[in-house]
Amino acid sequence: MSRTQSGNIPKPYNLIQNERQNTNFDINEMFEYLEGNSAEKAKLTEDVSRFLERDLVLKNTEGIYDNATKKDIRKTTFLKVGQLASFLEQNVQEQRAKGIPFNKLDMAPYMKIFSLYPMHDSQTVTRLGIHSGLFYNAVRGNGTPEQYQYWAFEREGIYARNVYGCFGMTELAHGSNVASLETTAEYDFETKTFLVNTPHIGATKWWIGGAATTANHCVVYARLIVAGKDYGVKTFIVPLRDINHKLFPGVSVGDIGAKMGRDGIDNGWIQFTNVRIPKNFLLQKYVKIDDEEQEVLDSPMDQLAYGALLDGRVSMVTDSFRIAAKVLTTALRYAVGRRQFGKTEDPAKNFVLKAEVDSSLKLEKQIIDYPNHQYRLIPLLAQAYTLSTVSDRLFEIHEAVRNALDAPHLLTDQKFLFQTIEELKEVFVVSASAKANATWFGAKTIDEARQSCGGHGYSSYSGFGSTYNDWVVQCTWEGDNNVLSINSGRSIVKYRAAAKKGKPVPKSFAYLKNDHKLANIDFKDSDQLLKLFDLAINAQVDNVLEILPRFGGNYEKVGPNLKQISQFQYFRYNLESALLYFKANKGKTIKPVLSKVINLFANYVVRENASEFLRYDLISKQQLNDIDVNIFGELLPALRDQIIGLTDSFKLSDFFVNSALGGYDGDFYNKYFDLVNRNNNSGSDYDNSDYQDEIVKFLRRDSLPVREFGEKSPETLAKLGK
Amino acid sequence: MSRTQSGNIPKPYNLIQNERQNTNFDINEMFEYLEGNSAEKAKLTEDVSRFLERDLVLKNTEGIYDNATKKDIRKTTFLKVGQLASFLEQNVQEQRAKGIPFNKLDMAPYMKIFSLYPMHDSQTVTRLGIHSGLFYNAVRGNGTPEQYQYWAFEREGIYARNVYGCFGMTELAHGSNVASLETTAEYDFETKTFLVNTPHIGATKWWIGGAATTANHCVVYARLIVAGKDYGVKTFIVPLRDINHKLFPGVSVGDIGAKMGRDGIDNGWIQFTNVRIPKNFLLQKYVKIDDEEQEVLDSPMDQLAYGALLDGRVSMVTDSFRIAAKVLTTALRYAVGRRQFGKTEDPAKNFVLKAEVDSSLKLEKQIIDYPNHQYRLIPLLAQAYTLSTVSDRLFEIHEAVRNALDAPHLLTDQKFLFQTIEELKEVFVVSASAKANATWFGAKTIDEARQSCGGHGYSSYSGFGSTYNDWVVQCTWEGDNNVLSINSGRSIVKYRAAAKKGKPVPKSFAYLKNDHKLANIDFKDSDQLLKLFDLAINAQVDNVLEILPRFGGNYEKVGPNLKQISQFQYFRYNLESALLYFKANKGKTIKPVLSKVINLFANYVVRENASEFLRYDLISKQQLNDIDVNIFGELLPALRDQIIGLTDSFKLSDFFVNSALGGYDGDFYNKYFDLVNRNNNSGSDYDNSDYQDEIVKFLRRDSLPVREFGEKSPETLAKLGK
Repeated sequence: MSRTQSGNIPKPYNLIQNERQNTNFDINEMFEYLEGNSAEKAKLTEDVSRFLERDLVLKNTEGIYDNATKKDIRKTTFLKVGQLASFLEQNVQEQRAKGIPFNKLDMAPYMKIFSLYPMHDSQTVTRLGIHSGLFYNAVRGNGTPEQYQYWAFEREGIYARNVYGCFGMTELAHGSNVASLETTAEYDFETKTFLVNTPHIGATKWWIGGAATTANHCVVYARLIVAGKDYGVKTFIVPLRDINHKLFPGVSVGDIGAKMGRDGIDNGWIQFTNVRIPKNFLLQKYVKIDDEEQEVLDSPMDQLAYGALLDGRVSMVTDSFRIAAKVLTTALRYAVGRRQFGKTEDPAKNFVLKAEVDSSLKLEKQIIDYPNHQYRLIPLLAQAYTLSTVSDRLFEIHEAVRNALDAPHLLTDQKFLFQTIEELKEVFVVSASAKANATWFGAKTIDEARQSCGGHGYSSYSGFGSTYNDWVVQCTWEGDNNVLSINSGRSIVKYRAAAKKGKPVPKSFAYLKNDHKLANIDFKDSDQLLKLFDLAINAQVDNVLEILPRFGGNYEKVGPNLKQISQFQYFRYNLESALLYFKANKGKTIKPVLSKVINLFANYVVRENASEFLRYDLISKQQLNDIDVNIFGELLPALRDQIIGLTDSFKLSDFFVNSALGGYDGDFYNKYFDLVNRNNNSGSDYDNSDYQDEIVKFLRRDSLPVREFGEKSPETLAKLGK
Repeated sequence: MSRTQSGNIPKPYNLIQNERQNTNFDINEMFEYLEGNSAEKAKLTEDVSRFLERDLVLKNTEGIYDNATKKDIRKTTFLKVGQLASFLEQNVQEQRAKGIPFNKLDMAPYMKIFSLYPMHDSQTVTRLGIHSGLFYNAVRGNGTPEQYQYWAFEREGIYARNVYGCFGMTELAHGSNVASLETTAEYDFETKTFLVNTPHIGATKWWIGGAATTANHCVVYARLIVAGKDYGVKTFIVPLRDINHKLFPGVSVGDIGAKMGRDGIDNGWIQFTNVRIPKNFLLQKYVKIDDEEQEVLDSPMDQLAYGALLDGRVSMVTDSFRIAAKVLTTALRYAVGRRQFGKTEDPAKNFVLKAEVDSSLKLEKQIIDYPNHQYRLIPLLAQAYTLSTVSDRLFEIHEAVRNALDAPHLLTDQKFLFQTIEELKEVFVVSASAKANATWFGAKTIDEARQSCGGHGYSSYSGFGSTYNDWVVQCTWEGDNNVLSINSGRSIVKYRAAAKKGKPVPKSFAYLKNDHKLANIDFKDSDQLLKLFDLAINAQVDNVLEILPRFGGNYEKVGPNLKQISQFQYFRYNLESALLYFKANKGKTIKPVLSKVINLFANYVVRENASEFLRYDLISKQQLNDIDVNIFGELLPALRDQIIGLTDSFKLSDFFVNSALGGYDGDFYNKYFDLVNRNNNSGSDYDNSDYQDEIVKFLRRDSLPVREFGEKSPETLAKLGK
């Protein structure tokens, strides 16, 4: 007992612990489903989780809530970056000791850190990921094997030894439109060097994580100019700082200061003024300059060079799943433990402890028992579930494409090359739709979870605020969500237009060829709903194809439609993936509840986007009522009773949930109160302000006439004339 | 020229200044429409704006972006609170000098500060508003005139002299359900005192702004217990700190620490342990204890005592209008000045400066010229416009009710009392729907405006992050939005059920009696759309009335439906108010554009909520296409050309827009770059980190075998055995 107990003290922990015992499936089985239907992946998740939560450097101190300044956060983030880089160093050395070559290293444990640690601290892996992900993916993807070998392994830069890289793509006036970046790299045949220049303020490299303080090298996206001709944007390694970490002349760098979140990352700006680099600092896997013939051998496809960005997009889908799992665990535990309004209808059903039953009729209702509260949160939980399968599926597809891109015969086997380019395009479309809509889902889920915890959701100790602030940049960086949505929507329209002419479409989009009718829909059957989704997308696309000629075929004019198509592609991909993994799953206990989870996701999508289904005559008004009956009469009540088990299945320890309201034991009032007081009220008068004197002086100030020197008093005024 | 100009330097200021000249209406006329159709109110807004932006204490320092700690912010916020309280003091004394009695004081200038200053700094007026708004509204609303006179004027507390109040309503375990608060005030007939107690941790007063540091008094919401009987929650003045600002024994107070935003407010918790207060510290306008008869004379209606909360709700609608105006001004100026992708189609139409026309074919497109970008922002601007009229209308209605509540004959004239109670209920319903949906609109608008500025929207200097973080608590406090939505939705259902039985309904809800059919709708006619909205709400309500019996009349089961009805009431009220003010407006130049603004709002509502109109057969699928043609073919293109004028009409100087991206002159790249550098890069090597040594040491660390003391080398291992 942490404090004297008296009166009708709330005991959320009893509710949560009791509902936990009522779980009717094996959470280990469910965990395996959520971790890619794989015992091996599930084990790795547990192993890496254990490493992370035990490491002292990686643990946030409580000071982060109230006292840490931006400078403090920057520094501790760097120390964490160092710890994770050292983890990789050790891991690589152990594998090297076994004789594994550099290009066969198993990076899975390191990548799992990137998937898990952001739930505790999202800025550290971003700061490190700019180096080991963006920078080295660019070197690997755009450089020759020799270039990658040198920068990553010979220099040992891959784990932040000697080399620390940043990723110089975005400029002040150019973000989304990479092809129009304005930094130039002009080739000089005589000296076999490039002269790198920032022509004006708009071309200043901006948002460059690591540039402000940490990085000594940069992959610079710049226009290749050879003999006065512009060959478009290519990538170059440009050293920024010398071995003593001093900036080279011609390299101007600044810190771009505070952000909405992720202040632990040292984003900077860079301007180049006649910076000279050797010819071989051009990453030249796809582009070569022939000094003899004085000509440029260019890439077969620009997107090959942008392959470095795919990795980030795919991880952001995983991030979306994890962040949703984290905040929903808190919000749903709170919803089970918090009581407000009404009266408990059935104490037994509400899992009141025996000792409480007598007084239970006086107890208020658990907020999770309000249908509106269920409808706010449980469908989001269902989407977190489906998204786990999208995350794993995209990861596997991306690995396959990356291996193809890394294949030594890529550029010599033309058939293989073009096949790989087609696959790359397909993954670009699928991942663009998934990245945009998954990260928006993440933002919406954090916000809804916060609001569902009422005022306490606004306290820093609940974790929602910092989670949101760190999160939302995901909707903007590495492909603005609106741009990605419209681009992927446009591709889908083009795929269907091709399909209608009998041309082949990539296998992810085979559904665009389906125009089967649905006579009657059983909304409890998720397979039928998948077909319904197909029809909806096809109807949306056909509508665009019909109106497009009115705009002279200008896709910009149908931007909002394309965005919606991309969103439906995302919904469809979620449902398809969830069902695929469901069918492949061998679990003995989870299928009844899991099929309801998936079915809720699908029904919710139809309900929330009903106008699309109604306007294309895919469902009737009566069927909309059937959906309501299914959601409110069946699915929500059934899942509500398993809500603790369904969140426990994410297997997030308190280190990852990282919220005073979301701890496993459910004792949130005591924990929150104590955390608040440890951090704020250590003085004997519970007052840590340093301006008490100002307050007292102000409250006890003289009256206004006195403060005016009495010079407006009738007596004074009489002296001053009439 | 702020720096050497070379190359294709972006010049957003030219675009913005040129489009400004193209404005085809008088922005002074538009400003008057936005300020309640009143020249007098418009003038007051300008006067108060000028005062605020000139005052040195009230101006945020630039340090707020990067260096200010929570402690710094708390202190500067207090200093600003003092300045505004002194403003009120001076203003009151000037009026008193004219012989105006206390109950006739003109508070309009002071209230205008509360409406305007939050665009620059939203925490100061909240911190002060807890004292002068919540605390004194409770004293005024629940206390007798003598009690108000004493605490507010005799003690001069109203402008924070001697008395600084806080508002002790919320508890750790009770927010929304005020009627179940657990703090007790037990009356002792013998000593004529109350004993105030916090029975357990769950009843700790929580979130109490001002309690942590500033306040010396608190209006405590506590259960009145007399002779063992519980009379429900009443309000009491409880002194917290003595004249030297030391806590009284039995009063435990703590700071509740960091929040998602508004860290300038010293929210605290309070626990009372046998704190004794005199009988007359009970605010006794509606409740009295008769010592002779030993009985309690109670209030005719609980809501009379909650009248103090109305003020906040109504202001939050105004806040929503202002915050939307602020962020949309930034986002739309940025959208006009920023270019990305594509090519300018028609240089003349795009207002390119003559000097630029030659090179204009090389220029990228202004992002406002993308239909998707227009659709993201311009309908939000339209809603900000309609909301300005809701804000003014609610303000006037609320004033009327407040005057009725303040009337001396309120409790003696029974007919007047019951009429006032009915009006109060009506305002509760209208304001609940408006508060919930307007604050959600505010949150959505800040988020969309931020995202529409891409990466730069995530920079602190754009102002969106802090604006969002300070904002979103509005969705939770003073009536959680979900709870308010459901409650107001339920009232609307009950009103219509009554109307169907021929009973009277309050005049704001007269539309619930309308069931006129609409044969053909002209979507360009906003009056017809208002009728369409009526039909939609009535259909939604009838649907609830139809399904409710299935749930035994339990309104909780139809929570999501009630929430939607409340949302539609909000939409309808916006449209109705905008049209009312439009018709009353005498402007000579603004009506053509203004009617398009209002029409866009109405069409957007239908498009975004099409399923509701389709499912109840209010519009056809074909009409949905008509709406698309109206929005994308007519309204957006027409309004896009007036977008600078429409945002200039808010008349927000740079002090209020408060964003590096949103300045009036449109020179955002230079201003943003310079602001970043002033605050971060003052050192000669542009590096203000304090851990460079750590970085160098880490990057140049020994190799792993060396760091392992060489003890895993083959030579060592050979020594250690096989």
